[in-house]
Amino acid sequence: MKIHPVVLAGGRGERFWPLSRHERPKQLLPLVSEKPMVRETVDRLGDLAGPERVWVLTSADLRGAVQTVLADVPAAHIVGEPVAKNTAPAIALAAWWLRGEGPDAVVAVLPSDHRIEPPERFRSDLEAAARLARDERAVVTIGLRPTRPETGYGYIEAGDPAAPGSPARRVAAFREKPDPATAERYVSGGKHLWNGGMFLFTPETMLEELGAYAPEIAVLLKDVPDGPSHPGSADAVARFYEAAPSISIDYAVMERTKRALVLPASFAWDDLGSWAALGDVGGADASGNHARGETLLEDSSGVIAYSDQGLIAALGVKDLVIVRTGDVTLVCPRDRAQDVRTLVQRLKRDPSLARYL
Amino acid sequence: MKIHPVVLAGGRGERFWPLSRHERPKQLLPLVSEKPMVRETVDRLGDLAGPERVWVLTSADLRGAVQTVLADVPAAHIVGEPVAKNTAPAIALAAWWLRGEGPDAVVAVLPSDHRIEPPERFRSDLEAAARLARDERAVVTIGLRPTRPETGYGYIEAGDPAAPGSPARRVAAFREKPDPATAERYVSGGKHLWNGGMFLFTPETMLEELGAYAPEIAVLLKDVPDGPSHPGSADAVARFYEAAPSISIDYAVMERTKRALVLPASFAWDDLGSWAALGDVGGADASGNHARGETLLEDSSGVIAYSDQGLIAALGVKDLVIVRTGDVTLVCPRDRAQDVRTLVQRLKRDPSLARYL
Repeated sequence: MKIHPVVLAGGRGERFWPLSRHERPKQLLPLVSEKPMVRETVDRLGDLAGPERVWVLTSADLRGAVQTVLADVPAAHIVGEPVAKNTAPAIALAAWWLRGEGPDAVVAVLPSDHRIEPPERFRSDLEAAARLARDERAVVTIGLRPTRPETGYGYIEAGDPAAPGSPARRVAAFREKPDPATAERYVSGGKHLWNGGMFLFTPETMLEELGAYAPEIAVLLKDVPDGPSHPGSADAVARFYEAAPSISIDYAVMERTKRALVLPASFAWDDLGSWAALGDVGGADASGNHARGETLLEDSSGVIAYSDQGLIAALGVKDLVIVRTGDVTLVCPRDRAQDVRTLVQRLKRDPSLARYL
Repeated sequence: MKIHPVVLAGGRGERFWPLSRHERPKQLLPLVSEKPMVRETVDRLGDLAGPERVWVLTSADLRGAVQTVLADVPAAHIVGEPVAKNTAPAIALAAWWLRGEGPDAVVAVLPSDHRIEPPERFRSDLEAAARLARDERAVVTIGLRPTRPETGYGYIEAGDPAAPGSPARRVAAFREKPDPATAERYVSGGKHLWNGGMFLFTPETMLEELGAYAPEIAVLLKDVPDGPSHPGSADAVARFYEAAPSISIDYAVMERTKRALVLPASFAWDDLGSWAALGDVGGADASGNHARGETLLEDSSGVIAYSDQGLIAALGVKDLVIVRTGDVTLVCPRDRAQDVRTLVQRLKRDPSLARYL
């Protein structure tokens, strides 16, 4: 079996502003360790798949930055999308290019900006999922056991076991972000898992399912050469993205296919959706403060302080997020961290501050 | 009449950390306007006394910085004190050097880091006080009408009018910083004024009073040449400061002399004792936020935001002080601004952070 990781790194991560900037979004930041998250994503694969087998789809303007961070990934494997069209077109393109890799090839679609620990468990889960994808010709997603009634995630309802004794389950349904009461029910019921955006399949399986459920995408692939280095490929890819609908793989395929399986994960996971999530990563001091970089927190508790340059000094404050980057300082309550996007929207409307985007 | 301003600029202003730094204390900062406060202090004098007549006493290590800011003040008039000895020795030295300026000369001792508005009223009050100092051979202090029961200031108890119909009063007593109940009584009683550290006198009057009440300082003056440019002056000044007791002019002279008068001020005054004081200066927006520099305050109120470089973005916070300087961000509640010194003390104890002092 040969796993071909396809890392999706096209997001903007505005909720991590001001650390995430238009030119340096979340996946390029060292949020959990000292490495940029996309680098962490590649390194986490270890022996399962070396950098030479990794593919990355990102936005065209981020391609150079991704290449710098992933210098050991073949340059041709780092694809700059000329226009963002959600996940289905990117996954279709990867399946198309990898369709000649033989019967042992399994594609593993991986987000580039999530926290996953420990890497050993991640690898064994990924390998098990890949085996299922190959042996069952299934589209396998890895489901995360919910630890709280999160309303910001999609859920997967697990059905019958894929086979007697198998930990994998058929997918009964994909569920959109629930309301709080429904989320509570999902968590206590034990049948629902978080959808973490990780999918495994053979290229042929995915191309078949796209043909069946997203023919408007599948048909466009015929005009794309067999690899990104083929003559005329760049122009063909540009035309493909131009013509493709903007649609998620969840909606285009996963919610419709009869071949979906879900494997419950044994690793810890967080999508790091906002600054507040850093408080869940661990490493708090006795006062519940989470500090990265140089900080001086006096008579303060529950503070998430992140400085990548210079000192953050706080006195007598509680449950605040304080971020200091090169040229911006952000202060907000932890429970307002989701709303940081509001500030980004304000910046977009104010030309005098647009350089802080 | 010829007013000789003597500006005292030796303080460290630690409560304005991190904007105030060891090498750039409060008097060198543009806290109220775009000008450093000591520059504001000199400019405020207008026609009363041009820069060529101004003297400044500061600490030796700040002399260069003060000279840069006050390039139009004669370099010899900017005296670097080799060791801080409070206000009495500095005032004694200035009186000694100015004693040959003739019968019309009046010294005006002025702090370098207070807010005073409007300058016109300040000038007319200062002129009236100088006239009193000359005509009555008095030591005149300008008293500020208290606007709140401040426990952080010294008070002056006003006695009988200096002369029938005169707005000036004899000083009945100097009162140390009161407890809250006493402060309330002072404010409601109407007889007490804040001591703002402004004193006017002829050089001869001050030298006589020093001789009478602080002979241990007066005697040291005999060894100091007649001006800072005289041969041997630098060494003599160093010896003077070495030998002089550390004592305030309030304690050395004002509380003891029979020649003290107080003139109630007609101008608005604030000693800008901490970041919170910026909130009293005016200029708040509709949400009560006071912003200097580039700021983006969303759904926030009562915030004092001061950035001298880069952006401060706040979301959903209330009554905070947020300061962003080149390499430090400070966050604390407005009502803890007095305690910023605690952070400075912490920095002094931590060698790894000492560069932020």
